[in-house]
Amino acid sequence: MEIVNFKSVVSKYKAVFFDAYGVLKNHKGILPGVQNTFDYLIENNIDYYILTNDASRSPIRLAEGYQANGITAITPDRMISSGMLAREYLQYKVKKGTVAYLGTSGSAHYIETTGLKTISISEVQLDYVDELEAIVFLDDEGFNWNTDINKIINILRRKNMPVIVANTDISYPVNKNEISIAVGALADMVEEIIGKTFIRFGKPDAQMFMFAYEQVMAKNYISKDEILMVGDTLRTDIIGGNKFGLDTVLVLTGNIMPDQAEMKIASTGIIPNYVCESVVI
Amino acid sequence: MEIVNFKSVVSKYKAVFFDAYGVLKNHKGILPGVQNTFDYLIENNIDYYILTNDASRSPIRLAEGYQANGITAITPDRMISSGMLAREYLQYKVKKGTVAYLGTSGSAHYIETTGLKTISISEVQLDYVDELEAIVFLDDEGFNWNTDINKIINILRRKNMPVIVANTDISYPVNKNEISIAVGALADMVEEIIGKTFIRFGKPDAQMFMFAYEQVMAKNYISKDEILMVGDTLRTDIIGGNKFGLDTVLVLTGNIMPDQAEMKIASTGIIPNYVCESVVI
Amino acid sequence: MEIVNFKSVVSKYKAVFFDAYGVLKNHKGILPGVQNTFDYLIENNIDYYILTNDASRSPIRLAEGYQANGITAITPDRMISSGMLAREYLQYKVKKGTVAYLGTSGSAHYIETTGLKTISISEVQLDYVDELEAIVFLDDEGFNWNTDINKIINILRRKNMPVIVANTDISYPVNKNEISIAVGALADMVEEIIGKTFIRFGKPDAQMFMFAYEQVMAKNYISKDEILMVGDTLRTDIIGGNKFGLDTVLVLTGNIMPDQAEMKIASTGIIPNYVCESVVI
Amino acid sequence: MEIVNFKSVVSKYKAVFFDAYGVLKNHKGILPGVQNTFDYLIENNIDYYILTNDASRSPIRLAEGYQANGITAITPDRMISSGMLAREYLQYKVKKGTVAYLGTSGSAHYIETTGLKTISISEVQLDYVDELEAIVFLDDEGFNWNTDINKIINILRRKNMPVIVANTDISYPVNKNEISIAVGALADMVEEIIGKTFIRFGKPDAQMFMFAYEQVMAKNYISKDEILMVGDTLRTDIIGGNKFGLDTVLVLTGNIMPDQAEMKIASTGIIPNYVCESVVI
Repeated sequence: MEIVNFKSVVSKYKAVFFDAYGVLKNHKGILPGVQNTFDYLIENNIDYYILTNDASRSPIRLAEGYQANGITAITPDRMISSGMLAREYLQYKVKKGTVAYLGTSGSAHYIETTGLKTISISEVQLDYVDELEAIVFLDDEGFNWNTDINKIINILRRKNMPVIVANTDISYPVNKNEISIAVGALADMVEEIIGKTFIRFGKPDAQMFMFAYEQVMAKNYISKDEILMVGDTLRTDIIGGNKFGLDTVLVLTGNIMPDQAEMKIASTGIIPNYVCESVVI
Repeated sequence: MEIVNFKSVVSKYKAVFFDAYGVLKNHKGILPGVQNTFDYLIENNIDYYILTNDASRSPIRLAEGYQANGITAITPDRMISSGMLAREYLQYKVKKGTVAYLGTSGSAHYIETTGLKTISISEVQLDYVDELEAIVFLDDEGFNWNTDINKIINILRRKNMPVIVANTDISYPVNKNEISIAVGALADMVEEIIGKTFIRFGKPDAQMFMFAYEQVMAKNYISKDEILMVGDTLRTDIIGGNKFGLDTVLVLTGNIMPDQAEMKIASTGIIPNYVCESVVI
Repeated sequence: MEIVNFKSVVSKYKAVFFDAYGVLKNHKGILPGVQNTFDYLIENNIDYYILTNDASRSPIRLAEGYQANGITAITPDRMISSGMLAREYLQYKVKKGTVAYLGTSGSAHYIETTGLKTISISEVQLDYVDELEAIVFLDDEGFNWNTDINKIINILRRKNMPVIVANTDISYPVNKNEISIAVGALADMVEEIIGKTFIRFGKPDAQMFMFAYEQVMAKNYISKDEILMVGDTLRTDIIGGNKFGLDTVLVLTGNIMPDQAEMKIASTGIIPNYVCESVVI
Repeated sequence: MEIVNFKSVVSKYKAVFFDAYGVLKNHKGILPGVQNTFDYLIENNIDYYILTNDASRSPIRLAEGYQANGITAITPDRMISSGMLAREYLQYKVKKGTVAYLGTSGSAHYIETTGLKTISISEVQLDYVDELEAIVFLDDEGFNWNTDINKIINILRRKNMPVIVANTDISYPVNKNEISIAVGALADMVEEIIGKTFIRFGKPDAQMFMFAYEQVMAKNYISKDEILMVGDTLRTDIIGGNKFGLDTVLVLTGNIMPDQAEMKIASTGIIPNYVCESVVI
């Protein structure tokens, strides 16, 4: 397996999509030198977006995390999150009424910008579920797991309504050695018990890539094979990018250790076009 | 679909295995008239056992629940629980050292009768996991779901050890209209995230039926087809009984409403030998 | 559950996407009266496309089936098939070389219009797999199941390459009472054995709806909620349409009997905006 | 990971259960030196059984394969096959009538020793399915995959009856480099399509270990932890043995290469008591 220089790869494309965690940042913060990469993209007129399975805050809040660390190139209009897709779903399909959510009140504020009312699952009264139009899983924080996850099940037994999972991830790193259960895994558990089919947004699903592609196309016509997807995870970033028709780069700064990359590509059959050590150039 | 009288069925067998919830009791308590059934069994020399996916307490505590309600026929030696199988596993395979558990301290006391030390997951220090020999999921109560389920994942990332799930159920009824997530579903979620294979005890697994069959055989030689398994759930009681070679009765006092039985049998392909309204005779 | 008239529903939209089997036709052929529906759409300037999980032939051949039965409104440019998505993937991601296929030679001809060479799995020599760039599952006919499905497994053990499944369906009706295994189920079996991740095209995946939406948008700007998706299957047509942001109609001329619709919607949690008897108006 | 000598391990036990393929034999035949191992067991009064997921022939035929190669210690009474469990199921649960089978006529002969009639799926007339009492998956050979697997689905749509899968394996090796789909994978595919629950026999299911344990106990009382299970596959032999309460040895002559063993044990969480190069002593 050949490891190539990221600059030599990215220079051949007209746009780049980056995964966030494991690619631009890790448990210590933004990878040192990432600003150089964005300087290079801007100088060379290469368009870029950040695609993240994160519904815990709005694009504005997501971008602030980069801006505060000196990465001024990452503005809110560059962020594509699974939360934006969930919000779009609610706009098209629910339109009015109240949506019950699992997550922090911060995660719900972004949903409210659609004009929908939101209510935390903890505040729902089982006898008043008729007012609810949908349930949305936003974040693994901001609620009591035991009482509120059980409550979702009993709400769904009383009223049939769509359930939206705004983050397909099942875990996320909290520090060098530890991970935490993500809201996608909580949703999988509820779905298994209740036996209904939920609607999920996030990589590797094509809708995430399409959303970013539409932003690119609004500026210039670019063919899918002129776009590069950069990620650290085979089963979300790389297979999602491949399936959408993009060329793909696996970087070794996140999920996959350098000595495992060849074996993981062989065992999963998920084959990136390139492998690079990192996006730093 | 013919619904037959339970007495006419059970009179043909030498032993009966009963599921507990949905068969002998429901959310209101013991079904009225159940004592008559046990009187009939005793008079007619038909042996009986209760098979339950419950690891939250010992056979003594499980039997007390019936005794306190006047069902004196159900003594601790008549109870076969998935917790007993988990306890047996630890006896044969772990033998000494400390086992970390998810559940109440009551559920752990029963494990301690093996001579093993137990420690609640909440008290485990991540830097001292080397002392642990196994993890056991006992009950959905007695701990903080958020912190303690996450902690299990991080313990397993530090030390490879067997994980025992002492109850395969994914939910249980708490009252007429509401259900609650059972510890089996929490274990399924952790297993999905950590990617390891856990060891599960409980119906429909053959080991549960075998444990009961050994009790029967210790008294008299009885062929498997002289034993009747009675349950309210197709995918645990009935398929488990069928696979073990027992004849099976579906009763309509629990999971399955009378008007759904025919459709559920057809759609699952899990076919009881008989359908009865209830075990009351 | 209210059953409404299709005309009263469709008149409110600017475009309609139809599933094919169970909606426009069944085992007896085209539903009588379907031409009236298309006459109405054309008169009222409502755009329309047929979305089908069928990779066994090209859009031209698919349209011929309707034309030959007098439905002249269905021209090749109205057909959106999962085979077209598979073809697009190969164009963007494989570009040159040889693709091995499972299916009839007819299904492979359409792939060859990309300029790629194709070879039937039956003709692949295990010692010459280095020449292959991808494997594609096109159809359940045209090969020996025993030898050729086994051969795919052994090809993939020799060379790691992408595997494309051009039809996600697991079965299809062959007459009033009988169904047949579809190529999607054969692919599921191979994926389970080989442990690799395949790339699948077809409803309910968003890419199928996006492909159709791009055709609509090339003519006029239409918002997603001005498009109606019509299908007979909850877990492909309806959930796929809902997730993409379209309004949805369940028709009762295919998979779901009129007396089951309410129960199936309740048990799956997949909720169409409308239920109509059929598309015939 | 310490690799220990098999003799030093086995000498501590009163009985041993061996997996067949990958332990006693491989694609070249019986491992050279295996007879010495059995000589040692016999001299030291250590009881032994062969546990195999094979329903393609009777114990007599299975033993002949060893006898013909000079391993006279392996007599029919030493063989425990998943086919024997399927046969026992039919004896207890079906008792009379006709069973349709997928497999060779040789595999069916063994079923007929119960007194049941058998008919190959290929000979079943769809209009006469009422005569059938059960369907059994015996072997991946002896039938036309395309027509006969499709026929099973349509038989089950006409009549609800138990389906028995007499081999849980999904693949088996045919030579050094190639594998073949096993009947367990064909059954998984049919089960997925028809949506019914089949009854499966074979490791890692406890019933297989129990069957062998009953043979041991018929001669002498031996505690479970005085029995050693020897296998080459973590997810069948080792987890099955562990769960049943046996001590376990992973040997490196089959599924798992010596340089992968440590990683596979860590990633699966399936932990044998010992790792040995082979059973040859």
